[in-house]
Amino acid sequence: MNIDDMVMVSIDDHVVEPADLFEKHFPKSLMDQAPKLTANPRNPEVQAWQFQGTVVGSSGLNAVVSWPKEEWGMDPTGYAEMRPGVYDMNQRVRDMDANGTLAATLFATFPGFAGTHLATLPDKKLSLAALKAFNDWVVGEVPGTHPGRFIPLGIIPFYDADESVKEIHRLAAMGCRSISIPETPYGVGDGYPDFKSGHWDPIFKACVEHNIVVSLHIGGGMGLVKRPEAFNLDDMLVLTPLISTIAATDMMLSGAFQKFPDLKVAMSEGGVGWVAPWLDRLERHIVNQSWTGASFLPKGMSPTDVWKKNFLACYITEPSGLNNRERLGIDTIAWECDYPHSDSTWPRSPEVLMEEFVAAELTDEEIDKVTFENAARFFGWDPFEHTPREQATVGALRARAKDVDVSETSKEEYRRRYELAHS
Amino acid sequence: MNIDDMVMVSIDDHVVEPADLFEKHFPKSLMDQAPKLTANPRNPEVQAWQFQGTVVGSSGLNAVVSWPKEEWGMDPTGYAEMRPGVYDMNQRVRDMDANGTLAATLFATFPGFAGTHLATLPDKKLSLAALKAFNDWVVGEVPGTHPGRFIPLGIIPFYDADESVKEIHRLAAMGCRSISIPETPYGVGDGYPDFKSGHWDPIFKACVEHNIVVSLHIGGGMGLVKRPEAFNLDDMLVLTPLISTIAATDMMLSGAFQKFPDLKVAMSEGGVGWVAPWLDRLERHIVNQSWTGASFLPKGMSPTDVWKKNFLACYITEPSGLNNRERLGIDTIAWECDYPHSDSTWPRSPEVLMEEFVAAELTDEEIDKVTFENAARFFGWDPFEHTPREQATVGALRARAKDVDVSETSKEEYRRRYELAHS
Repeated sequence: MNIDDMVMVSIDDHVVEPADLFEKHFPKSLMDQAPKLTANPRNPEVQAWQFQGTVVGSSGLNAVVSWPKEEWGMDPTGYAEMRPGVYDMNQRVRDMDANGTLAATLFATFPGFAGTHLATLPDKKLSLAALKAFNDWVVGEVPGTHPGRFIPLGIIPFYDADESVKEIHRLAAMGCRSISIPETPYGVGDGYPDFKSGHWDPIFKACVEHNIVVSLHIGGGMGLVKRPEAFNLDDMLVLTPLISTIAATDMMLSGAFQKFPDLKVAMSEGGVGWVAPWLDRLERHIVNQSWTGASFLPKGMSPTDVWKKNFLACYITEPSGLNNRERLGIDTIAWECDYPHSDSTWPRSPEVLMEEFVAAELTDEEIDKVTFENAARFFGWDPFEHTPREQATVGALRARAKDVDVSETSKEEYRRRYELAHS
Repeated sequence: MNIDDMVMVSIDDHVVEPADLFEKHFPKSLMDQAPKLTANPRNPEVQAWQFQGTVVGSSGLNAVVSWPKEEWGMDPTGYAEMRPGVYDMNQRVRDMDANGTLAATLFATFPGFAGTHLATLPDKKLSLAALKAFNDWVVGEVPGTHPGRFIPLGIIPFYDADESVKEIHRLAAMGCRSISIPETPYGVGDGYPDFKSGHWDPIFKACVEHNIVVSLHIGGGMGLVKRPEAFNLDDMLVLTPLISTIAATDMMLSGAFQKFPDLKVAMSEGGVGWVAPWLDRLERHIVNQSWTGASFLPKGMSPTDVWKKNFLACYITEPSGLNNRERLGIDTIAWECDYPHSDSTWPRSPEVLMEEFVAAELTDEEIDKVTFENAARFFGWDPFEHTPREQATVGALRARAKDVDVSETSKEEYRRRYELAHS
């Protein structure tokens, strides 16, 4: 297969909420209490969201795309410095074209990847209004404005099972294909119920009813692994994939798949390399440690069976990740772009992927599975409903994005362009 | 290769200290303050070590070998119930014969795998005396009594760098090939200095001077990963390999290999599957996240170079673990038996290994590397010094152990035999 013939669907990208999101989508009657942009106390030159007495801005690492590496970091950042595709979905689609990305899911920033920031605020009525405003935009508006370019993914008020179920029904009616929930809820804030607690059962039930995928993105679990004081961000960045192993273990051992045999779980941003040794360990565990009497598997199924039926892993770049594809099943591996975060391979994702496909000797059939078929099947989403395959390829998408500047661009230059455009 | 022709050296087995260890090896002048066996407060029928006002016994999972699975568990256990090979080194060698194991390392139980229990006790003079008594037995006595059957591995008073260096010199003079230190010292007790702190530098220096391997066995780090209350032992057993990833990351990023380019680190009980994705992540990290300015690699070396030169991984059984052997390097993979713990494959280790070798299509040369050559080279230990190769094979060792009963045997039956033998 040529790079130009690949079809690429990412199940993990991110969006910084546009400045007018809440003006447009927050209930009119509560507008004076809506999230509002204010000066970031850590750097008054950039914005932050003020809501319910808290102020939360974007961190540089949440929006590094196309900045020179010297400018990467944890400093707060604002719209003027960001590549417009980070928050402007017209520009985003053009950036996707430039990378040959047919479609993507969008995880929230200000609300938290899984709505965790909103969950920790005191006024749950206002938090719910903000959550619905975000969903109305990200699920109700964006995918329809750009047909065939986004797999709709929403968030729920996960701390309240009844409200969550209502929101899942509402999201499903809007065509939503996935919800993002905290991968390790007991690690969020003061601790929310874990997957074994029963709290999540009505939520999982509603997801199964609508064939909605539960996406577990690394985020809230980062604090679960105690680090020594002297170690720093490098240490944490290297260890992030561990959180997927922890979250998948929690989910597998919770018994959720006994109760909901059709529950689908996508592991976001953990890579794929951890899956084979984890399955080896689980398979041995249920035989060798049978004395514990653990019961978490649906009747007649092994951990590997459950993995193959109920899980989807994804990776950004991982040269050795495909070597064990027979062990975990090629049908359980998908690609993610992670635009605009620091791990992303944008705008060279097709080249990075193909180099790894060639090294691992994937067949054309396997390549199609990894780049789009598995994601489409698992999320119940037809990639060619709005875009015929010949117009959905890397080659076709890039052909119409020749004018998109993908070169390294400094914050200062983005600021200059932003001021020009807004003056 | 036939199973009978394999040579097997384990770099991770365990010993429960014999009842007379401290009588024989504790300083006479302090004998009234030596560790003494007493009734275990959790079960007065079994023993526990009383020392410095604390009472610590063995947990069932530390000695399950040949018990029926129904009898496995965390309950306290004592000598009468255990398979004698757990604590009696004459019987141990016969059990090793029955499994075709030529040689093994012995990790401590009462002192802690890495001396961590002794470290947390108040009287450091007494703790040091107990530690030296253990070393005098496990390094000074056992390997000499059974030539060629044990790779000598000791413990150090790691909380005191000066005393540790002295003990390393003393151990080296006794022929010691490895020391066991806490894999995540900041997770032990109230927290000891991490590998970056400088505390360990004189210790690492002394190890390099004597070509002594630093063994990092999973244990103290288990508490680093916060678990939800409702999850149980299964959850923790499945997740244990994560601790090796954490410990190896701490060691790699500490800069220890810049300071001590010849430092050797053996990762005990973490398996091998985690290594390939971890190396992929590290390789990408140093390029993609170069903005952090992290400096931890020796000049001109990549993380993979450091892994191949300075690390050794080992596994018990892991069917997919060998598929990525080209990525991490076949020379970095060793076998461990884990006798008498619950993960052990004893007495069928050769059969379990061979099945996995065949599935992964290992050559005879690769099999030799995994089963003994890598361990022997890394630990600087000649497997055939005391045993010619033709007498060191699985077939030869098993031939002389035909009378060893390896069948499942209940605690009650062991107790009956013990009482017979001691009446």
